[in-house]
Amino acid sequence: LKEITEIQSISFVGSGNVATHLAHAFQSADRHIHEVYSPHHSHALDFARKFNCVSRKSIQQLSSDVDLMLLCVPDSQISEVSELILPGRAIVAHTSGIEPLASLSDKIRQTGVFYPLQTFSKDRKVDFRVVPLCIEGKQASTFELLTQLAYKLSNKVVAISSPERAMLHLTAVMVNNFSNKLYGMAHEILERNQLDFNLLLPLIQETAHKMEEMSPEEAQTGPARRNDENTISRHREMLKEFPQYQQLYQLITDEIIKKTHE
Amino acid sequence: LKEITEIQSISFVGSGNVATHLAHAFQSADRHIHEVYSPHHSHALDFARKFNCVSRKSIQQLSSDVDLMLLCVPDSQISEVSELILPGRAIVAHTSGIEPLASLSDKIRQTGVFYPLQTFSKDRKVDFRVVPLCIEGKQASTFELLTQLAYKLSNKVVAISSPERAMLHLTAVMVNNFSNKLYGMAHEILERNQLDFNLLLPLIQETAHKMEEMSPEEAQTGPARRNDENTISRHREMLKEFPQYQQLYQLITDEIIKKTHE
Repeated sequence: LKEITEIQSISFVGSGNVATHLAHAFQSADRHIHEVYSPHHSHALDFARKFNCVSRKSIQQLSSDVDLMLLCVPDSQISEVSELILPGRAIVAHTSGIEPLASLSDKIRQTGVFYPLQTFSKDRKVDFRVVPLCIEGKQASTFELLTQLAYKLSNKVVAISSPERAMLHLTAVMVNNFSNKLYGMAHEILERNQLDFNLLLPLIQETAHKMEEMSPEEAQTGPARRNDENTISRHREMLKEFPQYQQLYQLITDEIIKKTHE
Repeated sequence: LKEITEIQSISFVGSGNVATHLAHAFQSADRHIHEVYSPHHSHALDFARKFNCVSRKSIQQLSSDVDLMLLCVPDSQISEVSELILPGRAIVAHTSGIEPLASLSDKIRQTGVFYPLQTFSKDRKVDFRVVPLCIEGKQASTFELLTQLAYKLSNKVVAISSPERAMLHLTAVMVNNFSNKLYGMAHEILERNQLDFNLLLPLIQETAHKMEEMSPEEAQTGPARRNDENTISRHREMLKEFPQYQQLYQLITDEIIKKTHE
Protein backbone atom coordinates (compact mmCIF):
# COMPACT_ATOMS: atom_id res chain seq x y z
CA LEU A 1 0.00 0.00 0.00
CA LYS A 2 1.39 3.36 -1.07
CA GLU A 3 1.59 5.77 1.84
CA ILE A 4 -0.57 8.88 1.62
CA THR A 5 1.44 12.09 1.71
CA GLU A 6 -1.43 14.43 0.90
CA ILE A 7 -5.17 13.85 0.62
CA GLN A 8 -5.97 14.36 -3.06
CA SER A 9 -8.95 12.10 -3.76
CA ILE A 10 -12.08 11.70 -1.66
CA SER A 11 -15.10 9.41 -1.72
CA PHE A 12 -18.31 10.19 0.10
CA VAL A 13 -20.67 7.93 1.99
CA GLY A 14 -23.84 9.99 2.23
CA SER A 15 -24.99 12.75 -0.10
CA GLY A 16 -27.00 15.16 2.07
CA ASN A 17 -26.34 18.78 3.03
CA VAL A 18 -23.04 18.19 4.83
CA ALA A 19 -21.69 16.00 2.00
CA THR A 20 -22.78 18.48 -0.66
CA HIS A 21 -21.32 21.53 1.05
CA LEU A 22 -18.06 19.74 1.81
CA ALA A 23 -17.78 18.37 -1.73
CA HIS A 24 -18.19 21.90 -3.13
CA ALA A 25 -15.49 23.17 -0.81
CA PHE A 26 -13.14 20.28 -1.66
CA GLN A 27 -13.66 20.81 -5.37
CA SER A 28 -12.85 24.51 -5.00
CA ALA A 29 -9.68 23.39 -3.23
CA ASP A 30 -8.73 21.20 -6.23
CA ARG A 31 -9.41 17.89 -4.53
CA HIS A 32 -10.80 15.08 -6.65
CA ILE A 33 -14.25 13.76 -5.73
CA HIS A 34 -13.97 10.12 -6.74
CA GLU A 35 -17.14 8.22 -5.81
CA VAL A 36 -20.29 8.44 -3.77
CA TYR A 37 -22.57 5.95 -2.09
CA SER A 38 -25.88 6.77 -0.46
CA PRO A 39 -28.70 4.49 0.68
CA HIS A 40 -30.92 6.93 -1.25
CA HIS A 41 -29.68 6.03 -4.72
CA SER A 42 -31.44 8.94 -6.44
CA HIS A 43 -29.64 11.37 -4.10
CA ALA A 44 -26.35 9.69 -4.91
CA LEU A 45 -27.08 10.10 -8.64
CA ASP A 46 -27.76 13.83 -8.19
CA PHE A 47 -24.58 14.17 -6.18
CA ALA A 48 -22.56 12.25 -8.79
CA ARG A 49 -23.89 14.46 -11.57
CA LYS A 50 -23.12 17.62 -9.60
CA PHE A 51 -19.54 16.63 -8.81
CA ASN A 52 -18.82 14.60 -11.91
CA CYS A 53 -18.05 11.44 -9.96
CA VAL A 54 -19.17 7.80 -9.95
CA SER A 55 -22.12 6.67 -7.87
CA ARG A 56 -22.12 3.18 -6.32
CA LYS A 57 -25.08 1.04 -5.35
CA SER A 58 -23.43 -0.54 -2.33
CA ILE A 59 -20.81 0.53 0.18
CA GLN A 60 -18.60 -2.43 -0.65
CA GLN A 61 -18.40 -1.28 -4.28
CA LEU A 62 -16.59 1.88 -3.25
CA SER A 63 -13.04 1.62 -4.53
CA SER A 64 -10.33 1.68 -1.90
CA ASP A 65 -8.07 3.59 -4.27
CA VAL A 66 -8.71 6.98 -2.68
CA ASP A 67 -6.99 8.90 0.10
CA LEU A 68 -10.08 9.60 2.17
CA MET A 69 -13.51 8.07 2.64
CA LEU A 70 -15.70 10.62 4.34
CA LEU A 71 -18.80 9.45 6.19
CA CYS A 72 -21.59 12.05 6.03
CA VAL A 73 -24.35 9.79 7.34
CA PRO A 74 -26.67 10.11 10.34
CA ASP A 75 -24.85 9.62 13.66
CA SER A 76 -26.67 6.37 14.35
CA GLN A 77 -25.28 4.80 11.13
CA ILE A 78 -21.61 5.70 11.53
CA SER A 79 -20.62 2.59 13.42
CA GLU A 80 -22.46 0.19 11.13
CA VAL A 81 -21.24 1.86 7.93
CA SER A 82 -17.65 1.77 9.16
CA GLU A 83 -17.97 -2.00 9.67
CA LEU A 84 -19.14 -2.50 6.08
CA ILE A 85 -16.64 -0.26 4.32
CA LEU A 86 -13.51 -1.69 2.66
CA PRO A 87 -11.06 1.15 3.01
CA GLY A 88 -7.82 -0.43 1.85
CA ARG A 89 -5.21 2.27 2.31
CA ALA A 90 -7.78 5.08 2.67
CA ILE A 91 -8.33 7.15 5.77
CA VAL A 92 -11.92 6.82 7.03
CA ALA A 93 -13.29 9.88 8.80
CA HIS A 94 -16.72 10.84 10.03
CA THR A 95 -18.20 14.34 10.22
CA SER A 96 -20.35 14.09 13.34
CA GLY A 97 -20.37 16.51 16.24
CA ILE A 98 -21.41 14.05 18.89
CA GLU A 99 -20.06 10.61 17.89
CA PRO A 100 -16.66 9.74 19.35
CA LEU A 101 -13.79 8.77 17.09
CA ALA A 102 -14.10 5.27 18.58
CA SER A 103 -17.48 4.80 16.86
CA LEU A 104 -15.51 3.97 13.74
CA SER A 105 -14.65 0.27 13.44
CA ASP A 106 -11.33 -0.53 15.12
CA LYS A 107 -10.60 -2.85 12.19
CA ILE A 108 -9.81 0.27 10.16
CA ARG A 109 -6.18 1.31 10.43
CA GLN A 110 -6.48 5.04 9.83
CA THR A 111 -9.53 6.75 11.29
CA GLY A 112 -10.34 10.36 12.04
CA VAL A 113 -12.95 13.04 12.47
CA PHE A 114 -13.55 16.04 10.21
CA TYR A 115 -16.31 18.05 11.88
CA PRO A 116 -17.36 21.39 10.38
CA LEU A 117 -18.91 23.48 13.16
CA GLN A 118 -21.62 25.12 11.07
CA THR A 119 -25.25 24.67 10.05
CA PHE A 120 -25.82 23.77 6.41
CA SER A 121 -29.00 24.44 4.43
CA LYS A 122 -29.78 23.15 1.01
CA ASP A 123 -29.68 26.32 -1.06
CA ARG A 124 -27.53 28.54 1.10
CA LYS A 125 -23.90 29.15 0.27
CA VAL A 126 -21.41 28.79 3.13
CA ASP A 127 -18.10 30.63 3.35
CA PHE A 128 -15.87 27.76 4.43
CA ARG A 129 -12.87 30.02 5.10
CA VAL A 130 -14.46 31.02 8.42
CA VAL A 131 -16.00 27.66 9.37
CA PRO A 132 -14.14 26.04 12.29
CA LEU A 133 -13.02 22.54 11.26
CA CYS A 134 -12.55 20.25 14.26
CA ILE A 135 -10.02 17.54 13.53
CA GLU A 136 -9.16 14.32 15.32
CA GLY A 137 -7.04 11.34 14.22
CA LYS A 138 -6.36 7.92 15.70
CA GLN A 139 -2.70 8.28 14.67
CA ALA A 140 -0.61 11.41 14.53
CA SER A 141 -0.11 10.92 10.78
CA THR A 142 -3.87 10.75 10.14
CA PHE A 143 -4.38 13.86 12.24
CA GLU A 144 -1.68 15.64 10.21
CA LEU A 145 -3.17 14.68 6.84
CA LEU A 146 -6.70 15.70 7.85
CA THR A 147 -5.42 18.97 9.30
CA GLN A 148 -3.48 19.71 6.10
CA LEU A 149 -6.65 19.06 4.08
CA ALA A 150 -8.75 21.19 6.43
CA TYR A 151 -6.44 24.17 5.92
CA LYS A 152 -7.17 24.00 2.18
CA LEU A 153 -10.78 24.84 3.09
CA SER A 154 -10.68 27.00 6.18
CA ASN A 155 -8.46 29.36 8.16
CA LYS A 156 -9.87 28.01 11.40
CA VAL A 157 -8.63 24.45 11.96
CA VAL A 158 -8.55 23.09 15.50
CA ALA A 159 -7.48 19.85 17.19
CA ILE A 160 -10.49 18.72 19.19
CA SER A 161 -10.81 15.48 21.16
CA SER A 162 -14.02 13.43 21.18
CA PRO A 163 -15.25 14.66 24.59
CA GLU A 164 -14.42 18.25 23.64
CA ARG A 165 -16.29 17.87 20.37
CA ALA A 166 -19.36 16.55 22.19
CA MET A 167 -19.25 19.63 24.43
CA LEU A 168 -18.98 21.91 21.39
CA HIS A 169 -21.92 20.06 19.84
CA LEU A 170 -24.05 20.55 22.95
CA THR A 171 -23.37 24.28 22.93
CA ALA A 172 -23.89 24.44 19.15
CA VAL A 173 -27.36 23.01 19.72
CA MET A 174 -28.00 25.79 22.25
CA VAL A 175 -26.89 28.70 20.10
CA ASN A 176 -28.28 27.29 16.85
CA ASN A 177 -31.29 25.01 17.39
CA PHE A 178 -32.48 26.65 20.60
CA SER A 179 -32.03 30.24 19.40
CA ASN A 180 -33.89 29.25 16.27
CA LYS A 181 -36.69 27.89 18.48
CA LEU A 182 -36.88 31.30 20.19
CA TYR A 183 -37.16 32.88 16.72
CA GLY A 184 -39.96 30.39 16.02
CA MET A 185 -41.82 31.36 19.20
CA ALA A 186 -41.54 35.03 18.24
CA HIS A 187 -42.71 34.22 14.73
CA GLU A 188 -45.75 32.37 16.01
CA ILE A 189 -46.71 35.09 18.51
CA LEU A 190 -46.35 37.87 15.92
CA GLU A 191 -48.28 35.97 13.25
CA ARG A 192 -51.14 35.35 15.67
CA ASN A 193 -51.23 39.14 16.15
CA GLN A 194 -50.89 39.98 12.43
CA LEU A 195 -47.47 41.51 12.97
CA ASP A 196 -44.53 41.13 10.61
CA PHE A 197 -41.71 38.86 11.87
CA ASN A 198 -39.31 40.65 9.51
CA LEU A 199 -39.41 43.65 11.87
CA LEU A 200 -37.24 41.55 14.21
CA LEU A 201 -34.53 40.69 11.67
CA PRO A 202 -32.18 43.63 12.32
CA LEU A 203 -32.41 42.90 16.06
CA ILE A 204 -31.76 39.18 15.54
CA GLN A 205 -28.69 39.96 13.48
CA GLU A 206 -27.33 42.63 15.78
CA THR A 207 -27.74 40.25 18.74
CA ALA A 208 -25.54 37.73 16.93
CA HIS A 209 -22.98 40.29 15.72
CA LYS A 210 -22.51 41.82 19.16
CA MET A 211 -20.66 38.62 20.07
CA GLU A 212 -17.75 39.80 17.90
CA GLU A 213 -17.13 42.65 20.29
CA MET A 214 -18.32 41.61 23.72
CA SER A 215 -19.09 38.57 25.85
CA PRO A 216 -22.70 37.37 26.28
CA GLU A 217 -22.47 38.47 29.91
CA GLU A 218 -21.58 42.04 28.89
CA ALA A 219 -24.23 42.03 26.17
CA GLN A 220 -27.05 40.88 28.45
CA THR A 221 -29.77 43.55 28.66
CA GLY A 222 -33.54 43.58 29.04
CA PRO A 223 -36.22 43.44 31.73
CA ALA A 224 -34.80 40.31 33.41
CA ARG A 225 -31.31 41.82 33.55
CA ARG A 226 -32.80 44.95 35.19
CA ASN A 227 -35.14 42.83 37.32
CA ASP A 228 -37.95 45.01 35.93
CA GLU A 229 -40.92 43.26 37.53
CA ASN A 230 -43.45 45.54 35.92
CA THR A 231 -42.41 44.65 32.37
CA ILE A 232 -41.96 40.97 33.23
CA SER A 233 -45.48 40.74 34.62
CA ARG A 234 -46.91 42.48 31.52
CA HIS A 235 -45.08 39.98 29.30
CA ARG A 236 -46.41 37.12 31.40
CA GLU A 237 -49.90 38.53 30.98
CA MET A 238 -49.48 38.69 27.18
CA LEU A 239 -48.29 35.09 27.17
CA LYS A 240 -51.61 33.91 28.64
CA GLU A 241 -52.60 33.09 25.07
CA PHE A 242 -49.45 30.95 24.77
CA PRO A 243 -49.32 28.84 27.94
CA GLN A 244 -46.71 26.54 26.38
CA TYR A 245 -44.28 29.49 26.25
CA GLN A 246 -45.07 30.96 29.65
CA GLN A 247 -42.98 28.40 31.51
CA LEU A 248 -40.06 28.86 29.13
CA TYR A 249 -40.29 32.65 29.50
CA GLN A 250 -40.21 32.32 33.29
CA LEU A 251 -37.35 29.85 33.36
CA ILE A 252 -35.03 31.92 31.15
CA THR A 253 -36.04 35.11 32.97
CA ASP A 254 -35.26 33.48 36.35
CA GLU A 255 -31.87 32.31 35.05
CA ILE A 256 -30.95 35.82 33.88
CA ILE A 257 -32.08 37.34 37.20
CA LYS A 258 -30.18 34.71 39.19
CA LYS A 259 -26.99 35.27 37.18
CA THR A 260 -27.23 39.03 37.65
CA HIS A 261 -27.21 38.63 41.42
CA GLU A 262 -24.47 36.00 41.63
CA LEU B 1 -48.22 79.02 19.24
CA LYS B 2 -46.72 78.49 15.81
CA GLU B 3 -47.81 75.19 14.29
CA ILE B 4 -45.08 72.62 13.61
CA THR B 5 -44.82 71.68 9.93
CA GLU B 6 -41.63 69.67 10.23
CA ILE B 7 -39.64 68.50 13.25
CA GLN B 8 -36.38 70.44 13.07
CA SER B 9 -35.29 70.85 16.69
CA ILE B 10 -35.24 68.19 19.39
CA SER B 11 -34.56 68.17 23.13
CA PHE B 12 -33.74 65.00 25.04
CA VAL B 13 -34.79 63.86 28.47
CA GLY B 14 -32.31 61.14 29.31
CA SER B 15 -28.80 60.72 27.93
CA GLY B 16 -28.16 56.97 27.89
CA ASN B 17 -27.57 54.58 24.99
CA VAL B 18 -30.91 55.13 23.26
CA ALA B 19 -30.64 58.92 23.54
CA THR B 20 -27.06 58.93 22.30
CA HIS B 21 -27.71 56.69 19.30
CA LEU B 22 -30.83 58.62 18.34
CA ALA B 23 -29.07 61.97 18.73
CA HIS B 24 -26.28 60.80 16.41
CA ALA B 25 -28.84 59.70 13.86
CA PHE B 26 -30.82 62.96 14.13
CA GLN B 27 -27.68 65.02 13.75
CA SER B 28 -26.72 63.08 10.62
CA ALA B 29 -30.20 63.88 9.34
CA ASP B 30 -29.57 67.61 9.90
CA ARG B 31 -31.88 67.97 12.87
CA HIS B 32 -30.89 70.39 15.61
CA ILE B 33 -30.25 68.92 19.07
CA HIS B 34 -31.32 71.79 21.31
CA GLU B 35 -31.11 70.77 24.97
CA VAL B 36 -30.71 67.79 27.25
CA TYR B 37 -31.76 66.99 30.79
CA SER B 38 -30.73 63.91 32.73
CA PRO B 39 -31.00 63.13 36.43
CA HIS B 40 -27.33 62.15 36.08
CA HIS B 41 -25.96 65.62 35.46
CA SER B 42 -22.48 64.41 34.49
CA HIS B 43 -24.04 62.21 31.77
CA ALA B 44 -26.01 65.21 30.53
CA LEU B 45 -22.80 67.24 30.36
CA ASP B 46 -21.07 64.54 28.29
CA PHE B 47 -24.09 64.38 26.02
CA ALA B 48 -24.22 68.19 25.68
CA ARG B 49 -20.52 68.30 24.77
CA LYS B 50 -20.93 65.52 22.23
CA PHE B 51 -23.90 67.11 20.48
CA ASN B 52 -23.00 70.73 21.06
CA CYS B 53 -26.23 71.47 22.93
CA VAL B 54 -27.25 72.98 26.25
CA SER B 55 -27.60 70.81 29.37
CA ARG B 56 -30.24 71.68 31.97
CA LYS B 57 -30.26 70.89 35.66
CA SER B 58 -34.01 70.38 35.92
CA ILE B 59 -36.73 69.19 33.57
CA GLN B 60 -38.67 72.42 34.00
CA GLN B 61 -35.72 74.41 32.69
CA LEU B 62 -36.03 72.74 29.29
CA SER B 63 -37.17 75.39 26.84
CA SER B 64 -40.49 74.73 25.15
CA ASP B 65 -39.21 76.34 21.97
CA VAL B 66 -38.46 73.04 20.22
CA ASP B 67 -40.51 70.79 17.94
CA LEU B 68 -39.97 67.56 19.85
CA MET B 69 -39.11 66.56 23.39
CA LEU B 70 -37.97 62.97 23.33
CA LEU B 71 -38.09 60.93 26.53
CA CYS B 72 -35.31 58.35 26.66
CA VAL B 73 -35.74 57.46 30.32
CA PRO B 74 -36.43 54.14 32.06
CA ASP B 75 -39.99 52.90 31.46
CA SER B 76 -40.94 53.41 35.10
CA GLN B 77 -40.13 57.15 34.89
CA ILE B 78 -42.03 58.04 31.70
CA SER B 79 -45.30 58.89 33.37
CA GLU B 80 -43.72 61.00 36.12
CA VAL B 81 -41.39 62.84 33.75
CA SER B 82 -44.27 63.67 31.42
CA GLU B 83 -46.14 65.24 34.33
CA LEU B 84 -43.18 67.50 35.14
CA ILE B 85 -42.32 68.60 31.61
CA LEU B 86 -43.48 71.98 30.24
CA PRO B 87 -43.81 71.24 26.55
CA GLY B 88 -45.46 74.40 25.25
CA ARG B 89 -46.02 73.76 21.56
CA ALA B 90 -43.60 70.78 21.44
CA ILE B 91 -44.57 67.21 20.72
CA VAL B 92 -43.64 64.91 23.61
CA ALA B 93 -42.78 61.35 22.60
CA HIS B 94 -41.34 58.42 24.49
CA THR B 95 -39.10 55.67 23.10
CA SER B 96 -40.25 52.66 25.11
CA GLY B 97 -41.21 49.28 23.72
CA ILE B 98 -43.61 48.33 26.45
CA GLU B 99 -45.18 51.55 27.82
CA PRO B 100 -48.46 52.54 26.18
CA LEU B 101 -48.87 55.96 24.59
CA ALA B 102 -51.31 56.73 27.41
CA SER B 103 -48.46 56.66 29.96
CA LEU B 104 -47.70 60.20 28.83
CA SER B 105 -49.60 62.84 30.79
CA ASP B 106 -52.95 63.62 29.17
CA LYS B 107 -52.35 67.27 29.99
CA ILE B 108 -49.92 67.31 27.04
CA ARG B 109 -51.63 68.19 23.78
CA GLN B 110 -49.39 66.38 21.30
CA THR B 111 -47.99 63.04 22.40
CA GLY B 112 -46.47 60.15 20.52
CA VAL B 113 -44.14 57.18 20.52
CA PHE B 114 -40.87 56.83 18.61
CA TYR B 115 -39.65 53.30 19.32
CA PRO B 116 -36.52 52.02 17.57
CA LEU B 117 -36.70 48.22 17.47
CA GLN B 118 -33.01 47.55 18.02
CA THR B 119 -30.50 46.88 20.79
CA PHE B 120 -28.01 49.67 21.44
CA SER B 121 -24.59 49.26 23.03
CA LYS B 122 -22.31 52.02 24.13
CA ASP B 123 -19.49 51.77 21.63
CA ARG B 124 -21.19 49.98 18.77
CA LYS B 125 -22.32 51.86 15.68
CA VAL B 126 -25.85 51.17 14.48
CA ASP B 127 -26.99 51.47 10.88
CA PHE B 128 -30.28 53.31 11.43
CA ARG B 129 -31.37 52.94 7.80
CA VAL B 130 -32.41 49.35 8.57
CA VAL B 131 -33.74 49.86 12.10
CA PRO B 132 -37.55 49.55 12.23
CA LEU B 133 -39.00 52.72 13.78
CA CYS B 134 -42.40 52.10 15.36
CA ILE B 135 -44.49 55.26 15.41
CA GLU B 136 -47.66 56.17 17.25
CA GLY B 137 -49.36 59.55 17.73
CA LYS B 138 -52.32 60.72 19.80
CA GLN B 139 -53.43 62.91 16.87
CA ALA B 140 -53.07 62.18 13.16
CA SER B 141 -50.90 65.32 12.77
CA THR B 142 -48.47 64.15 15.48
CA PHE B 143 -48.30 60.75 13.88
CA GLU B 144 -47.53 62.37 10.51
CA LEU B 145 -44.76 64.59 11.89
CA LEU B 146 -43.09 61.74 13.77
CA THR B 147 -43.37 59.50 10.71
CA GLN B 148 -41.83 62.18 8.50
CA LEU B 149 -38.97 62.54 11.00
CA ALA B 150 -38.53 58.76 11.22
CA TYR B 151 -38.09 58.50 7.44
CA LYS B 152 -35.11 60.87 7.70
CA LEU B 153 -33.40 58.15 9.77
CA SER B 154 -34.70 54.84 8.48
CA ASN B 155 -36.25 53.15 5.47
CA LYS B 156 -38.37 50.99 7.74
CA VAL B 157 -41.03 53.14 9.42
CA VAL B 158 -44.20 51.47 10.69
CA ALA B 159 -47.42 52.56 12.37
CA ILE B 160 -47.70 50.43 15.51
CA SER B 161 -50.36 50.72 18.20
CA SER B 162 -49.53 50.41 21.90
CA PRO B 163 -50.74 46.78 22.26
CA GLU B 164 -48.92 45.84 19.04
CA ARG B 165 -45.75 47.48 20.29
CA ALA B 166 -45.95 45.55 23.58
CA MET B 167 -46.21 42.34 21.56
CA LEU B 168 -43.19 43.32 19.48
CA HIS B 169 -41.33 44.11 22.69
CA LEU B 170 -42.13 40.70 24.17
CA THR B 171 -40.81 38.95 21.05
CA ALA B 172 -37.79 41.27 20.92
CA VAL B 173 -36.94 40.10 24.44
CA MET B 174 -37.14 36.50 23.21
CA VAL B 175 -34.91 36.89 20.15
CA ASN B 176 -32.48 39.32 21.79
CA ASN B 177 -32.25 38.87 25.59
CA PHE B 178 -33.13 35.17 25.60
CA SER B 179 -30.92 34.22 22.64
CA ASN B 180 -28.14 36.12 24.33
CA LYS B 181 -28.78 34.07 27.48
CA LEU B 182 -28.33 30.91 25.40
CA TYR B 183 -25.03 32.33 24.13
CA GLY B 184 -24.14 32.95 27.78
CA MET B 185 -24.92 29.35 28.75
CA ALA B 186 -22.75 28.11 25.87
CA HIS B 187 -20.00 30.50 26.93
CA GLU B 188 -20.06 29.26 30.50
CA ILE B 189 -20.07 25.58 29.53
CA LEU B 190 -17.21 26.01 27.06
CA GLU B 191 -15.12 28.07 29.49
CA ARG B 192 -15.54 25.45 32.19
CA ASN B 193 -14.13 22.97 29.66
CA GLN B 194 -11.31 25.24 28.47
CA LEU B 195 -12.86 25.55 25.03
CA ASP B 196 -12.98 28.72 22.96
CA PHE B 197 -16.43 30.36 22.68
CA ASN B 198 -15.26 32.09 19.49
CA LEU B 199 -15.53 28.74 17.70
CA LEU B 200 -19.32 29.23 17.87
CA LEU B 201 -19.39 32.70 16.29
CA PRO B 202 -19.81 31.67 12.64
CA LEU B 203 -22.65 29.35 13.69
CA ILE B 204 -24.32 32.06 15.80
CA GLN B 205 -24.20 34.45 12.87
CA GLU B 206 -25.36 31.96 10.27
CA THR B 207 -28.31 31.03 12.53
CA ALA B 208 -29.35 34.69 12.55
CA HIS B 209 -28.75 35.26 8.83
CA LYS B 210 -30.76 32.22 7.78
CA MET B 211 -33.85 34.19 8.81
CA GLU B 212 -33.36 36.35 5.70
CA GLU B 213 -34.12 33.38 3.52
CA MET B 214 -36.37 31.01 5.44
CA SER B 215 -38.81 30.89 8.33
CA PRO B 216 -37.68 29.63 11.75
CA GLU B 217 -39.88 26.58 11.20
CA GLU B 218 -38.04 25.72 7.97
CA ALA B 219 -34.67 26.44 9.56
CA GLN B 220 -35.26 24.21 12.59
CA THR B 221 -32.73 21.36 12.66
CA GLY B 222 -30.91 19.38 15.34
CA PRO B 223 -31.41 16.39 17.62
CA ALA B 224 -34.78 17.57 18.98
CA ARG B 225 -36.11 18.21 15.47
CA ARG B 226 -35.05 14.66 14.50
CA ASN B 227 -36.20 13.30 17.85
CA ASP B 228 -32.71 11.81 18.18
CA GLU B 229 -33.00 10.32 21.67
CA ASN B 230 -29.46 9.04 21.71
CA THR B 231 -27.92 12.49 21.22
CA ILE B 232 -30.43 14.14 23.56
CA SER B 233 -29.57 11.74 26.36
CA ARG B 234 -25.84 12.28 25.84
CA HIS B 235 -26.39 16.03 26.05
CA ARG B 236 -28.43 15.57 29.22
CA GLU B 237 -25.59 13.52 30.67
CA MET B 238 -23.07 16.27 29.86
CA LEU B 239 -25.33 18.81 31.54
CA LYS B 240 -25.11 16.97 34.86
CA GLU B 241 -22.40 19.47 35.78
CA PHE B 242 -24.87 22.27 35.02
CA PRO B 243 -28.12 21.28 36.74
CA GLN B 244 -29.47 24.84 36.31
CA TYR B 245 -29.40 24.38 32.54
CA GLN B 246 -30.71 20.82 32.42
CA GLN B 247 -34.32 21.88 32.92
CA LEU B 248 -34.04 24.59 30.27
CA TYR B 249 -32.46 22.13 27.83
CA GLN B 250 -35.31 19.70 28.40
CA LEU B 251 -38.06 22.30 28.10
CA ILE B 252 -36.83 23.73 24.77
CA THR B 253 -36.14 20.23 23.45
CA ASP B 254 -39.66 19.12 24.39
CA GLU B 255 -41.14 22.20 22.68
CA ILE B 256 -39.23 21.47 19.46
CA ILE B 257 -40.29 17.81 19.53
CA LYS B 258 -43.92 18.74 20.23
CA LYS B 259 -43.99 21.27 17.38
CA THR B 260 -42.52 18.75 14.95
CA HIS B 261 -45.39 16.37 15.61
CA GLU B 262 -48.20 18.93 15.53
